[in-house]
Amino acid sequence: MRSESTPFRVRYPEVDRMGVVHHTHYLVWFELGRTELMRAAGLPYGVLEDDRGILFPVIEAGARYRRPARYDDQLEVQTGIVGLSPVRVRFEYRIVRPADGAVLADGFSVHAAVGRDGRPQRLPTELMERLSPWTS
Amino acid sequence: MRSESTPFRVRYPEVDRMGVVHHTHYLVWFELGRTELMRAAGLPYGVLEDDRGILFPVIEAGARYRRPARYDDQLEVQTGIVGLSPVRVRFEYRIVRPADGAVLADGFSVHAAVGRDGRPQRLPTELMERLSPWTS
Amino acid sequence: MRSESTPFRVRYPEVDRMGVVHHTHYLVWFELGRTELMRAAGLPYGVLEDDRGILFPVIEAGARYRRPARYDDQLEVQTGIVGLSPVRVRFEYRIVRPADGAVLADGFSVHAAVGRDGRPQRLPTELMERLSPWTS
Amino acid sequence: MRSESTPFRVRYPEVDRMGVVHHTHYLVWFELGRTELMRAAGLPYGVLEDDRGILFPVIEAGARYRRPARYDDQLEVQTGIVGLSPVRVRFEYRIVRPADGAVLADGFSVHAAVGRDGRPQRLPTELMERLSPWTS
Repeated sequence: MRSESTPFRVRYPEVDRMGVVHHTHYLVWFELGRTELMRAAGLPYGVLEDDRGILFPVIEAGARYRRPARYDDQLEVQTGIVGLSPVRVRFEYRIVRPADGAVLADGFSVHAAVGRDGRPQRLPTELMERLSPWTS
Repeated sequence: MRSESTPFRVRYPEVDRMGVVHHTHYLVWFELGRTELMRAAGLPYGVLEDDRGILFPVIEAGARYRRPARYDDQLEVQTGIVGLSPVRVRFEYRIVRPADGAVLADGFSVHAAVGRDGRPQRLPTELMERLSPWTS
Repeated sequence: MRSESTPFRVRYPEVDRMGVVHHTHYLVWFELGRTELMRAAGLPYGVLEDDRGILFPVIEAGARYRRPARYDDQLEVQTGIVGLSPVRVRFEYRIVRPADGAVLADGFSVHAAVGRDGRPQRLPTELMERLSPWTS
Repeated sequence: MRSESTPFRVRYPEVDRMGVVHHTHYLVWFELGRTELMRAAGLPYGVLEDDRGILFPVIEAGARYRRPARYDDQLEVQTGIVGLSPVRVRFEYRIVRPADGAVLADGFSVHAAVGRDGRPQRLPTELMERLSPWTS
């Protein structure tokens, strides 16, 4: 798939008493990747929310953890779209350690398109077209 | 299934700019439930880690989000075990709003038993027996 | 001072790789205490924000860390008000370990009263009166 | 003072229901700045902790909040050292919005040097010398 790579570094409070990143933070990293993919597609998420009134709440998410991430690791999240309809978007993610190419985790999130009132809202054709190059 | 119910209240910083709880915090609540189930089983997690040298890293986790949770909501997490072997435990969770019985989310986590060195370690029979009443 | 005591337990992801609670989480605990003081005063914060349109953004905060808090510790936050004017409230906090009375940290936060537009707004007399019993 | 500038972008879950960054996250940003200053000084914090056994727990911290930070803002933290002794380091921080030069917040943290056993430990002369260029 065509994917967007977003580099980031592990922050101190993300690491738990086992000395490895707590599993919840991977979902925050997935969101970083999703944010940057949408920016690259010309659809900054804040603009969608504030100017278009389109929200993308997460309706399902999951992750598999393969190798631990540690404090100060330089990592990247690779983000792609594997399902796109006017009312649903499914993103997939991989957390990679570029130094050796190791895949530390992978995961996904499914989002509904809704309006400010929480009701389902169809994505305008223009938005669908902007996301389509990222879809596999 | 026999499950453990753990009450908690939604904290201010758990709520995002959409006015609903950010999806990552549900995994923290799942962990609250898991912690209390293990305490109820006579296996406080801190004791396992510190005294027995047995760690339970998350190797897979996921959630489905059905209805939004909001600031200051009084909720509970219901936790059960649906898979138990000497090297793996699978917990399942439901986030419930007791006021009306609504299920806001459900999810799961799968844990490996490992030692301090990160190597797989079999759960002692005694621990298996303590968890078995919670298993369906 | 008259203070409100709010019990809570240390959560797993609040602990860092040093094995002690990361300093940022104490500010979340202070907020728990502030929330419960306001509830006890008959001014649930969510109601203030949603029904009255009065927000209390933090304009200054600080903490001194005396002894480390650890995973699963049963603690309490003691919260009082040490400064109250129609446009400013100053809360003070102590994080205490009831098992031995040890004070783990103390701190404060100063809040402005503003409207939804971010402009300063005077607290209604009724609200001032509700908070006054907690003021020293 | 000579300071280290570290750019970062505001993440979605850092923003609360008021639509502005929750005050606790500024302390995480301060830590980002401190981490990068120490890396620039040739003292990556992870190395200090893991190889030298020197920890820098926070013993006091505080912040003043001047203007709100918002979702997706591109910001920077400017970090300097204003007090340095063999047993204590005081960092100061400013959160700046480079687009218009606005200072959103400033703050500080004071750290003790301790060993793995939690006992005070004097900083080796070599470390003092590495930090001294950043001191005002």
